[in-house]
Amino acid sequence: MELYVERGFENTTVAEIAERAGLSERTFFRHFSDKREVLFSGSAGLAELLTERVAAAPKTAAPLDIVSAALQAAGAVIQERGEWSKQRQAVIDANPELRERELIKLASLASAVAEALRRRGVKGPSASLTAEAGIAAFKVAFERWVQQPTKRNLPRLVRESLDDLKAITAGH
Amino acid sequence: MELYVERGFENTTVAEIAERAGLSERTFFRHFSDKREVLFSGSAGLAELLTERVAAAPKTAAPLDIVSAALQAAGAVIQERGEWSKQRQAVIDANPELRERELIKLASLASAVAEALRRRGVKGPSASLTAEAGIAAFKVAFERWVQQPTKRNLPRLVRESLDDLKAITAGH
Repeated sequence: MELYVERGFENTTVAEIAERAGLSERTFFRHFSDKREVLFSGSAGLAELLTERVAAAPKTAAPLDIVSAALQAAGAVIQERGEWSKQRQAVIDANPELRERELIKLASLASAVAEALRRRGVKGPSASLTAEAGIAAFKVAFERWVQQPTKRNLPRLVRESLDDLKAITAGH
Repeated sequence: MELYVERGFENTTVAEIAERAGLSERTFFRHFSDKREVLFSGSAGLAELLTERVAAAPKTAAPLDIVSAALQAAGAVIQERGEWSKQRQAVIDANPELRERELIKLASLASAVAEALRRRGVKGPSASLTAEAGIAAFKVAFERWVQQPTKRNLPRLVRESLDDLKAITAGH
């Protein structure tokens, strides 16, 4: 990550990353399929976290509230990584290919959440819609968190974003 | 497009596309930067349509209703292209690289809508959130339209999808 920030993603080789991390290239490729995956390997863990949280939510909870709670938990995990998450975003924003990969990962998080809602009995289009709207609100919250100079709490921004979405759709 | 459906996107060359369309390769490249753009050149027109519709909406209209009306208009344009739009989607779904490009184009439509809302005086995070949620609802409507065998009306599915979103966020 340091190297990506110093030199830019394009100008950093796997050999250099492995050296900085004290790994052989072979070990690097045992952990990551390519140098992009250094940035995206966390998303499988996030998908798992979201799926678990949705599955474990109380039976009577409304789908959007379930998704909101799960996304706040994901926000807490990202918040813990703090600076790393922000540096990562700066690297991604500077590279169109990485921005595309990021959108794919967000879309796959939305699919994972929709699937988890369907397993709870939420109907097809509603499950997709709740998941996509939740991820959209998360994306907006995350952008606010990355951009602001002060340290605001990401889980709280996620909750605010979902509350804003409710206000917007209620026509306020 | 016929060639993409017959042979798959990967196995079709620009020379073949140009020949089928009765164009020289040179003319092809005057219209499209690469063979992917045959599938995505319409999105600039959609962004323009959405931006115009948002700008021209009545002053008193609620932001989400403005976005809903604009997306229904975009749905009508896509609906007119009918079979072409569905074939296009089948080609995209079969190719991960094209799916990434599709997500980028959707994200840029959301940015265009957010920007148009901001020019109407809608505040930063609300503008982004309304635009992202609207595009999310559009995406779900479009998937339903592509998947169903019967010919349901896309603008109507878009409106239903936005109405479902309102019901979901109201906790019903």
